[in-house]
Amino acid sequence: MTQAPNRRTAVETLRWVGDERGYLVLIDQTRLPLELVERECRDVETVWEAIKELRVRGAPAIGIAAAYGVVLGLQSAALSQSSALGARLEEVIAYLAKSRPTAVNLFWALDRMRAKGTALLAQSASGNFLGGLLAEARAIHEEDRAICRAIGRYGAELLAVGGGVLTHCNAGGLATAEYGTALSVFFTCQDQGKRLHVFVDETRPLLQGARLTAWELAQRGIEATLICDNMAGQVMREGKVQAVVVGADRIAANGDTANKIGTYSVAVLAAAHGIPFYVAAPTTTFDLAIDSGEQIPIEQRSREEITHGFGRQTAPDGIAVYNPAFDVTPARLIKAIITERGVIEPVSRETIQAAIGPTKRRT
Amino acid sequence: MTQAPNRRTAVETLRWVGDERGYLVLIDQTRLPLELVERECRDVETVWEAIKELRVRGAPAIGIAAAYGVVLGLQSAALSQSSALGARLEEVIAYLAKSRPTAVNLFWALDRMRAKGTALLAQSASGNFLGGLLAEARAIHEEDRAICRAIGRYGAELLAVGGGVLTHCNAGGLATAEYGTALSVFFTCQDQGKRLHVFVDETRPLLQGARLTAWELAQRGIEATLICDNMAGQVMREGKVQAVVVGADRIAANGDTANKIGTYSVAVLAAAHGIPFYVAAPTTTFDLAIDSGEQIPIEQRSREEITHGFGRQTAPDGIAVYNPAFDVTPARLIKAIITERGVIEPVSRETIQAAIGPTKRRT
Repeated sequence: MTQAPNRRTAVETLRWVGDERGYLVLIDQTRLPLELVERECRDVETVWEAIKELRVRGAPAIGIAAAYGVVLGLQSAALSQSSALGARLEEVIAYLAKSRPTAVNLFWALDRMRAKGTALLAQSASGNFLGGLLAEARAIHEEDRAICRAIGRYGAELLAVGGGVLTHCNAGGLATAEYGTALSVFFTCQDQGKRLHVFVDETRPLLQGARLTAWELAQRGIEATLICDNMAGQVMREGKVQAVVVGADRIAANGDTANKIGTYSVAVLAAAHGIPFYVAAPTTTFDLAIDSGEQIPIEQRSREEITHGFGRQTAPDGIAVYNPAFDVTPARLIKAIITERGVIEPVSRETIQAAIGPTKRRT
Repeated sequence: MTQAPNRRTAVETLRWVGDERGYLVLIDQTRLPLELVERECRDVETVWEAIKELRVRGAPAIGIAAAYGVVLGLQSAALSQSSALGARLEEVIAYLAKSRPTAVNLFWALDRMRAKGTALLAQSASGNFLGGLLAEARAIHEEDRAICRAIGRYGAELLAVGGGVLTHCNAGGLATAEYGTALSVFFTCQDQGKRLHVFVDETRPLLQGARLTAWELAQRGIEATLICDNMAGQVMREGKVQAVVVGADRIAANGDTANKIGTYSVAVLAAAHGIPFYVAAPTTTFDLAIDSGEQIPIEQRSREEITHGFGRQTAPDGIAVYNPAFDVTPARLIKAIITERGVIEPVSRETIQAAIGPTKRRT
């Protein structure tokens, strides 16, 4: 672990150091906002733990981390044996796929790494196997930067005059390679000179809004006000919010969207106040193999996240807890989905099919 | 401060020790659920601080504490001088009225103590002045017990078969003399053999749900599940909740209801899921001098409650915070108001006027 300089301006969520025998460095997001600490991942197990424990989180960033994780997992394999390499590749992919169940970008990135690895092995290019895998992981990483910028440009067109906006959890640079999805919309508005005021849901239980989104907005000098999740309805009622923009972890073929727990409540509240509710996500977040939100698996997390949030017990011993990490917002509550290919509006099976194309394979 | 025995079964939120020269003892609710600690209040300043810092909270309990606070504030007065007593009475009442601005029961209790004190002085009964004030405070205290029991009986009729219910904040025995308002409904259902499962919003920022409601339900062996506030929509969507019951801090003449921040969001979510939303409150919570919720003053609390809520800083330095202690749920979202005199349904200016009677004076 190395202490990164505090004066850095751009958030570098993940970076690969060295050649194909190198390693991954990521910001340990559990330490923010008080400490900007980087964590070195020199084996696939450390990547798995970083994803599981939310040191790296956000659907696109999880995908990128997993892609680099595949490279790390293959470094120790005997590169001369093509059949062993293929088996090890599948083993590493299966292992990383079990780190978190909901974000589809994880499976998408692993699928890409498998396809690349399989192609390399078919070419008998085992001498360049690791280098080829690293190139693919780097490509996923670089593509995500461009995707986030494009999402920001399309989204900023929807916020023509700026104003008050609300977001939930963190769909920022920390959730992606850089710039983010929902926050990319805000950053692009700022670049265009539109004045925004962002209301940030703190996002219990793990406070990604308070710890990460508030921090990113402050780093870029965007006006922001932190609220508890249960205050979102009140700020909407007071007329302070003209739009809601959130990220996504998985979007079904009909537009139902899994995102951080609490997103659904925000969408219901937005609808009740006539406020447009936007989802910003790369097309890799769509899972057209899943027909509707009811089929999206929802990760259940530990009770201690609620009963012992942040170092102190705040609930009686033995109390039962329900702690789903995500919920599903039905398509009918989503005014538009902002992707790198453009804005999908209205949100329906047909408009999504037209924008995204044929069904993709899943790990 | 004395450590109360952990095995006590009934919650004794407040108790007066001794005669009119005695003192008030209250449970320090900021220490729950890990420690059951009582705090002795031997002067009015300690009562004021206990209300301000939420050591005692909940609209009815604040009223009772303030009534005893008036007795404490007069103990040091020169009892032989009737004019000085009257001035000191007004001074103490004005002081206590500034402890918290939203709960109307505070002003109601202080009005009652003023009326009693004024009557005692008019009778030239200054010899028995303190004793008379204490009797009035004790009467307020005792009446609240009976009121809570009656609210429980009326409310239990609305939950004919038990089932899943949801509550926000703490409207329990700790918020009243005993038994509570919203929780009295659940306790009465339990007494009647109805099976309930209570979903408890943790209620950020001060976690009264996690710390107090979960504790009270556990003490009485009622099935309960703790959730973060942003999960209420999800449990409703999953069909786990058949009714919502909450308390109130002030109810306007048209039925608009101020209660703990987040209550309004719960009401909107309940409406969106077709779930009845009930308010349980004594008639002293009505403030007919206030025409609608827009005129209810909303207390704003400190930023640290959000940024340093769990004994650790969880938001970046300097971030702006919005921290209203209450919000207002419009009457149209409230299916019925459960009072000690019966159930007001539908909730309208007319039905409230009929149930509560003429406008009362305010401090």
